[in-house]
Order: sequence, then structure tokens, then C-alpha cells
Amino acid sequence: MRTTVGIIGAGPAGLLLARLLHRAGIDSVVLESRDRGHVEHRQRAGILEQGTADVLRAAGAGERMDREGLRHDGIELRFDRRRHRVDLPALTGGRSVMVYAQTEVCKDLIALQLKEGGPLLFEAEALAVEGAAGDRPRIPFRHQGREDVLECDYAVGCDGFWGVARRAFPAALSRVFERTYPYAWLGVLADVPPSHGELVYARHERGFALLSMRSPSVSRLYLQVPPGTDTAEWPDDAIWTELGRRLETDDDWRLERGPITQKSVTPMRSFVHEPMRHGRLFLAGDAAHIVPPTGAKGLNLAVGDVVTLARALVHERRTGSPDLLGTYSATCLRRVWQAERFSCDMTTMLHPAPDGTPLDARLQRARLERIASSRAAETDLAEAYTGFPLG
Amino acid sequence: MRTTVGIIGAGPAGLLLARLLHRAGIDSVVLESRDRGHVEHRQRAGILEQGTADVLRAAGAGERMDREGLRHDGIELRFDRRRHRVDLPALTGGRSVMVYAQTEVCKDLIALQLKEGGPLLFEAEALAVEGAAGDRPRIPFRHQGREDVLECDYAVGCDGFWGVARRAFPAALSRVFERTYPYAWLGVLADVPPSHGELVYARHERGFALLSMRSPSVSRLYLQVPPGTDTAEWPDDAIWTELGRRLETDDDWRLERGPITQKSVTPMRSFVHEPMRHGRLFLAGDAAHIVPPTGAKGLNLAVGDVVTLARALVHERRTGSPDLLGTYSATCLRRVWQAERFSCDMTTMLHPAPDGTPLDARLQRARLERIASSRAAETDLAEAYTGFPLG
Repeated sequence: MRTTVGIIGAGPAGLLLARLLHRAGIDSVVLESRDRGHVEHRQRAGILEQGTADVLRAAGAGERMDREGLRHDGIELRFDRRRHRVDLPALTGGRSVMVYAQTEVCKDLIALQLKEGGPLLFEAEALAVEGAAGDRPRIPFRHQGREDVLECDYAVGCDGFWGVARRAFPAALSRVFERTYPYAWLGVLADVPPSHGELVYARHERGFALLSMRSPSVSRLYLQVPPGTDTAEWPDDAIWTELGRRLETDDDWRLERGPITQKSVTPMRSFVHEPMRHGRLFLAGDAAHIVPPTGAKGLNLAVGDVVTLARALVHERRTGSPDLLGTYSATCLRRVWQAERFSCDMTTMLHPAPDGTPLDARLQRARLERIASSRAAETDLAEAYTGFPLG
Repeated sequence: MRTTVGIIGAGPAGLLLARLLHRAGIDSVVLESRDRGHVEHRQRAGILEQGTADVLRAAGAGERMDREGLRHDGIELRFDRRRHRVDLPALTGGRSVMVYAQTEVCKDLIALQLKEGGPLLFEAEALAVEGAAGDRPRIPFRHQGREDVLECDYAVGCDGFWGVARRAFPAALSRVFERTYPYAWLGVLADVPPSHGELVYARHERGFALLSMRSPSVSRLYLQVPPGTDTAEWPDDAIWTELGRRLETDDDWRLERGPITQKSVTPMRSFVHEPMRHGRLFLAGDAAHIVPPTGAKGLNLAVGDVVTLARALVHERRTGSPDLLGTYSATCLRRVWQAERFSCDMTTMLHPAPDGTPLDARLQRARLERIASSRAAETDLAEAYTGFPLG
């Protein structure tokens, strides 16, 4: 098999890259190790920065998002039983975010790719990336019981944290940056209208809680729990009781309960692999970097990567100049490190650490107080939340 | 001996409190354990927030400050051999800071007190504070070989971190918040004009460095060193060489050398004692809270405390209402915690920790990049640096 750009992974990064390249007349093949149902249903992020929504629209993939997505003009910070709303457009010159689940983005992009785009192979497991330093990288893969090879001009690893692409970087080239946080998120989906119209980030002595949503009738809720927690330790009632405690306010706000349809536990990690390019192999999204989910940056970073990469590939095809491909890694990493910083700061501000001191707790509250009382500090947060500029 | 307000400690907090009370017609006695020469020459902070300078002027203690102090409209952040100037007035609606050493503030206030104010006893060592919960606190002290007692309506501990006043709080009432940083500052005074007109805060892989000044002809310079460092380990040449490395830039800036006249090592600590009041005993300044020196907040917090306390005492004398005395601790602590947060953030952003990971280093640089590229983040810093509002 032969193509211009061989893409490993049909998550949002790989699918959007294929879409952007297709619109620019560059052919690609996408290899995805899981089946279509799995990709379309694994619960992930749900907050699209304004820039991400704009990219999806420009790629012709924004129609259902604009119909079904929920535009949010604010988030709420909750601490010491108080509520502080951050007015995103007022602080950022009109920018907002869109609540639209990653699963829906993937469904939309898969439908478009299968209808108009190049080959998208499910249950096609990439085994390695070979010859990245040469002119013609090769991606051996296994599909429907047969081994095959995808030959390409460029290989792109959109295959997530556990993927094979990153392993093709020579050890002498790779630098890894990593932190594991001493807590995890227990996330649930519940068939109940969200108890607040916007996301609520709550810091409480008992732990962090997040009230989010998938739609006007489906709530998405999270609780800080110890790493390695088993969902079996958390019966539905216990989850609702704990959410109620951590989200409690001094006014008459109330948490509505409903049937919980899904539970899962997510570890919290900061991770960056530098560089994001080796020869003709490029990494994008979780294959190169992981953020803790508190800042809602993971999906948006992946979109930033593939927009930068598509632009560079199109530039190379049209002008023959590899300049933008050469600066791909540095360009992405500037934005990646800002997102890592913001995600780390949001995480450490809102989660009482199990080994945290009383001083740490006071400093967390002082940070929240600062955001609630200084327009500059609040603007800093709002700018970061609605998204760092591309490029 | 009998007075209205018994003040322990003739640092800037105690001296300024006595001055403010004197101007309001309230009598006080100041007990200072050291001799006058010691108080007038111990090297401490040197940056006055705009509000601090205004308070000194209003107290009639600003004349020499306005003549000899250096108004600074900016600070420089230096990292990755780059220079970023933070324009303080442009970001804060006109606020700036004043470079005028704490020793000079003390000299001015001592001269005024001896000329116009109530008793100020040097080498008068307070031994305890008794009866704080009652109507008439007592401060036994030793002066010129004799034991005496100062009886007062109110006792104020301005006696620093190691003082006796804090010990008079019942253990059941006290809450202590503390962090020790894994580095210290080696500070030097040098007879050489400062190599830059404004303060330079430098983050370097080898450690933090700070270029500051006492006057147009005297430089004050600091190097991050391991805690417990002995100044004997640092010959003058080694200090200049290390300062030169850490402050190096990509342009033609140069560090000028000169005779080093003093060397000392300062540990770095965050510390808060809650509450700041017990009955008729009040704590102010370092007796209640310590900040690491990176944000230049220690002296300014002390001034904020005594302004708040003087206002409350005057209010009580004039109206009979103890309301402001009752809220003294909470009022001060709001500002204290913001200063603790800022000082901790500045410190951890600029000092590579000995146990820091490569991720930590990248995050430090990302924070500096953010300040250099976002007006909101830069304003947040400038507001904090020029001072949080009183009350």
C-alpha cells in the first residue's frame, strides 16, 4: 500500500489531519487499531476552544456541532461555598467555548472520511514505523489477519500515549518530561439535566469536583479520588452524596440526581515528548503530550498540532519548501508548554493533595480569591481557557 | 511603667506604629532588645510599595526617602538569556515602587521618635506578654540590668519571627502554616554602581540571581545557594563570576564588579500564624508571617499590619467601638495570604529546585514566557509587585 501521508490512529488528531489534507488535495491513509464502534464511543473530553470549533467549521465538519453543541460564555469557580463566574467573552474580546463531546467530533469526521476521503482502515494495527530518517517511511501493520505495509512520504503518529510511533524515535533524540499527580478522576455520565448551565469547577477540602455536561439532558460529573480507585468502590448513592457535599453553596443551589449510565477512573498525568518530529515522522496529540484534564486542553492541543502539520505539509507540496515541516516541533511545543503550564496550575489550584500541608490549602484558596478579585488574574485564566493562539 | 500601647520591637513595624499612634495622640512605649546601632544597620529589604511610601509620607517620615530614594518604574525578568521589562505604571494605572533600604526607614523613624515621640528603650528585652486575655496586659522586661514591667491597655508584638509575643497565644488558638524552601540567598553589598537601572530577576539553570541596589553607587546582589551555605565558601571572585553567568544576556549588557563590603546568607521560608490577635495582644509583621524575599513583600506587609492596627486603635479611642480591633486579624490575613501566594509563586518560578525535574524547569520557563507574552499575566504580576490594597 502506498500513500503520501500515512496516519496512525483515528482519534480526533488523525481524523482531522486526514480531513484537512483531503481538502488540500493531499492523499492519506488512516490506520486505526480498534473497531469503529470503539472509536465512536470512548468517552473523552468535551470542551472545544473557539479556535478548535472554527477549524472544524472550516474543514466542513462543523454542521452538527453548530446544531447540537452548546456554546458556553462562562465557567464557575466554587470554593468556600462561594460561587465566582468567569465571563469568558467579556474578558477575552468575545471568545467562548463549545461543549461538544470528542465522541461526536469523531463520529462526524469518520462519516465525512468514509464518504469523501481516503482509506480509513479500522482494526488495522500499526506495528512500527520504519525508516523515519530516510525518504520513504514504512508502517508495517496487521489488518483482518494479514500483515501488510503502508509506504508513505510522511508518517504521522496520532496513536496516543501508548502508541508505536513515539517508539520509533532514537533514544538519543528523545527527551521525556513527566509528572504523575497523587489523585485521579472518577467520571460518571448521568441521565439528568445538568444542575447548572455552565461548567462548575469546585475546590473543597474533601477534594475537587467538576460539574459538566454532554447535552441538555445528560450530565457529566467528576470527583477527585485516590489513584487506582475501582469504580466498584463507588455505588451511585455515594457518588451523588459526595458530589453534593463538594459542590455545596451558601445559596439555594441544588444538585439534581439521575440514573448513572457509565463510570470510569482517569489517572492524572503531565507528559511531553520532545521533539515532535524525527525525519519524516511526526507526532501529534496524545502521542506527544498528555495534560491533566482540569484545563480541558487535551483535544484542543491535538487539533492545534494537526492544523500546524497540515499547513506545513501543504506548504511543502505547493512550494517544495520543507521550512514549515522543519519548524513543526518547535511551533507546536510553544503552545504545548503553555497548555501544560495552565493545566498543571488549574490542577494544583483545585485539587487538595493527599500530602498537602495546611499552607498548601491556604495558598489554593488565595489563588482562587485572587482570580475572583483581580480582573488581570481572571483574564489570564479566561485567555488560557478559551485557547492559546496557533503557530 | 504604664502606657496605652506597649510595643515590643523597634523594627519598621514597631517604630511606624508608635509614630502613627503619636500623630493620633495615643501614647505608647517601644521596647527593643538590641542597641540602636544594631537596629540601624541590619541589612533587610529595600523595596517600598507605593502604598508604603505614601504611609511614610503621611506619617511625616518621608522627607529623606523622597530625597534619596530611587523611584523605579519597572523590573526586568531575565531568562534564557532574554530580557523582559515589566512596565509597572503602564500596567497598574501609574503605580511604581521606591528603592529605599529598611535600615534607612528605621533610622528616620528612630530619629523622629526620639525627637517627638514616646519612650523608645533600646537594650530593653521583653521577657513575655502576660494577661493578654484580660483588661490590662503586662510585659515584663529587662533593661540596663534591671527587671521592670510595662503595663498597657494593648500589647503589640512587632518582635519578629523569633520574638516572645507569639508565644503568649494559647496553643489551642494558634494555627501555624509553614514551608521551608530547599535553597537560600547569598546576599552581598558592593561599592559599585548598579549595572542596570532597575531590579533584575534572573532565572538560570545554575540558579536564581537578583541584581538590586541601595543607592546609585551601591549594588545589592543575590545568588541562590544551598541552605546552610557559609559565606566563607564564596570568595569575592567566585561571587562575581557566578553572578555574571546567571545574569548573562544575548546583547552587550555587562556586569560591573566592585569591592564587596558585606556578605550574608538568608534562609527562605513561608510562615503564617493565625490568628494575629489574642485578646488585647496583637501581632504585626514578621512576628505573624514570613515571606520568602523574592517578591519584596516582608516590609510592606508589616506596614500594612500597623496601618490597619493604628486605624483600629484610633477608632476605639475615639468612638469606644472595638469593632476594627475585632476584625484586625481577618483584615490583615486577607492581604497576608495574597502576599504569601505571590511570594511563593515568584520564588518557585525563578528558583530551580535541587530536587526539581526537567518538567519543573520547562514549566518555570513557560510561566516566564506567559508573563512576557500576555498583558493579563504581566498585569497580574505588576499589581502584586506594586502592592495589594490595604484593608
